[in-house]
Amino acid sequence: MNAYATGLAPAHSHISPIRRAEAYARAHDFDRPTLILDVDQVADQFHAIRRGLGRAAIHYAVKANPAREVIARLIEEGAHFDAASRAEIELCLSLGARPEQISFGNTVKKSADIAFAWTAGISLFAADAEEELEKIAENAPGAEIFIRLIVSQSEADWPLSRKFGVQPRAAMPLLHRARALGLRPVGFSFHVGSQTRQAAMWRPTVDEFAPLWAEARAAGFDLDLLNIGGGFPAFYNEAIDAPEAYARDVMALVEPRFPGARRIMAEPGRGLVAEAGVIAAEVVLVSRKSPDDLHRWVYLDIGRFSGLAETEGEAIRYQIATDHDGLPAGPCVLAGPSCDSADVLYERRPVELPLALKSGDKVIIRATGAYTTTYSSVGFNGFPPLDMVCI
Amino acid sequence: MNAYATGLAPAHSHISPIRRAEAYARAHDFDRPTLILDVDQVADQFHAIRRGLGRAAIHYAVKANPAREVIARLIEEGAHFDAASRAEIELCLSLGARPEQISFGNTVKKSADIAFAWTAGISLFAADAEEELEKIAENAPGAEIFIRLIVSQSEADWPLSRKFGVQPRAAMPLLHRARALGLRPVGFSFHVGSQTRQAAMWRPTVDEFAPLWAEARAAGFDLDLLNIGGGFPAFYNEAIDAPEAYARDVMALVEPRFPGARRIMAEPGRGLVAEAGVIAAEVVLVSRKSPDDLHRWVYLDIGRFSGLAETEGEAIRYQIATDHDGLPAGPCVLAGPSCDSADVLYERRPVELPLALKSGDKVIIRATGAYTTTYSSVGFNGFPPLDMVCI
Repeated sequence: MNAYATGLAPAHSHISPIRRAEAYARAHDFDRPTLILDVDQVADQFHAIRRGLGRAAIHYAVKANPAREVIARLIEEGAHFDAASRAEIELCLSLGARPEQISFGNTVKKSADIAFAWTAGISLFAADAEEELEKIAENAPGAEIFIRLIVSQSEADWPLSRKFGVQPRAAMPLLHRARALGLRPVGFSFHVGSQTRQAAMWRPTVDEFAPLWAEARAAGFDLDLLNIGGGFPAFYNEAIDAPEAYARDVMALVEPRFPGARRIMAEPGRGLVAEAGVIAAEVVLVSRKSPDDLHRWVYLDIGRFSGLAETEGEAIRYQIATDHDGLPAGPCVLAGPSCDSADVLYERRPVELPLALKSGDKVIIRATGAYTTTYSSVGFNGFPPLDMVCI
Repeated sequence: MNAYATGLAPAHSHISPIRRAEAYARAHDFDRPTLILDVDQVADQFHAIRRGLGRAAIHYAVKANPAREVIARLIEEGAHFDAASRAEIELCLSLGARPEQISFGNTVKKSADIAFAWTAGISLFAADAEEELEKIAENAPGAEIFIRLIVSQSEADWPLSRKFGVQPRAAMPLLHRARALGLRPVGFSFHVGSQTRQAAMWRPTVDEFAPLWAEARAAGFDLDLLNIGGGFPAFYNEAIDAPEAYARDVMALVEPRFPGARRIMAEPGRGLVAEAGVIAAEVVLVSRKSPDDLHRWVYLDIGRFSGLAETEGEAIRYQIATDHDGLPAGPCVLAGPSCDSADVLYERRPVELPLALKSGDKVIIRATGAYTTTYSSVGFNGFPPLDMVCI
């Protein structure tokens, strides 16, 4: 029961083979695919990262998992919050977060949502474009803003380089523009990319932005805030640094390069919640397309449109555990239950699963606490969204 | 107002520049991205396809748009239904469809859902694997089944070749197996692939399967049902045949190749509902990543996770209309509102949009009646699912 389907042992010591969420998933039956999330484990992970980060504040990226139980617990533990939308702000406030604990980190915001946030007392906003600064100046006059920078070289498993941020050479004009609009430009943000597995991978990014930080301060901008974003990894199958050491090593790279950054904030999402969750799902069909096919097709009752969106492009490779692990295995294409041909999880790199696997068998999909529940569709092909149990 | 953003005129005559759904979208304001669906237009399209199909029965692919208004209207008009799940069966039954009007077309079904369907009176099931036949025999003893075949050469914009069906050379053993299990193998199904733009593109597929049909009948299987699946196109930007002519030409290809097929069924989804809907959405931000960038980034309040999932891989290219159409335009990367870098609609092939476009402007996304509402996530990044208005 405890063996990994892949035959790999966990690469860092803080993961024991069976943790509380997985034990719960194995011990219970579920009507439909269900995420079991261990909120104590989230709190433990929060404190491990916090110990490593030292003086930096953790703004939990709410989008990773906006479960009320998670937000409430993180408020108790002293977290701050990075909100992507008005609804995420309302959620945090409704559970008792103070507005000064919340930053509005999406660089793409509707005017009405900026006005809402400002009226609610939130005063820290992200921007990466002139039109965004104009909207903030109009709807949150005098607010603090940080300029998001494009990371040119990402070593992340899920790079974010294209969509967000401004080229560093275009950042200074935005600082000037912000000041001219009556806003308070207080710093920069960047994101090394989701699932950046080792702290050492942060070096090219902090090296790239340090000169811009110095240039802006020399130009008379009183920058004191550096938002180092997310990128904190979860363990899927490849080695990652343990959370406290990871955070400490990142801070060791950051501190000497950004003098005067009195406020440092980090925005872990995946790194805080992913490992605290497992999904219990079921095999619906095992087949071969022809008798001489080497690999089988294994269809689960969960797919890309019901929780496992991050398998797109086979970017995130979840570990799958079954009751047959340890018995002879073979390669499988893994697919979801819908009538959509895009609903295939792993095909280019097939998954090794036990030959004994059959319809009705339970499977456990590990480290699925992040970016699953809310990515789930409302009712694609009539299949219900991913269910969740917090323990 | 009437010009197409792309500068292309519609390629077939049944689309006038502004139809009822679009007029409604232009005349009203919406709090959030909203699909406006013209149910009369769905009915018109149903009858156009039916005229072309002649004796074949239309099983509407419920997954394309399971709005109660659509299902109820199609029941009135005499449609049958292709259901992908238990929930879709329940929906059709609850609105008055009789069980004999419904086929359970997903080749991947849970045993409990097969049993549910059988008890509800549904007697026609799809299968493409031995284990699926065993589940059907156990839970729907004596049911009619059709074997889904893999289409090897698809000319569709969104081919479905990999995930569903069995290789033709493995089909005969499944017919034998079905009979041995006490099931009634009555025919074959195939799917030429979603958005197959011209009827002529069906030829290689029907040519491929005709010999298998003959072989099975010669071997003593009393096959009388041919399910030609979906593939009926919608007009996005590329020329398609008009619906009645398309359906007629497909039947002209099918009829001579499958003698004895007393029952022919077709499963249009997109082809029935896509053009009857438009989405009203809003520009949230227009920016350039650096002053010398040739193209702009245009961020909408709708993206891949809130209704436009079919832009994955830029497969489906929706037409975008704005109030500035006809004024000078330039290339744009089009992206959604979430903090997810995968939430980009068109980047490899940028979209031409007016240079005057700015935050707050309304955009109309045409031919979005299919595969939008239910593909929408429950609350990705805190953004609500796509709203819908039926007119």
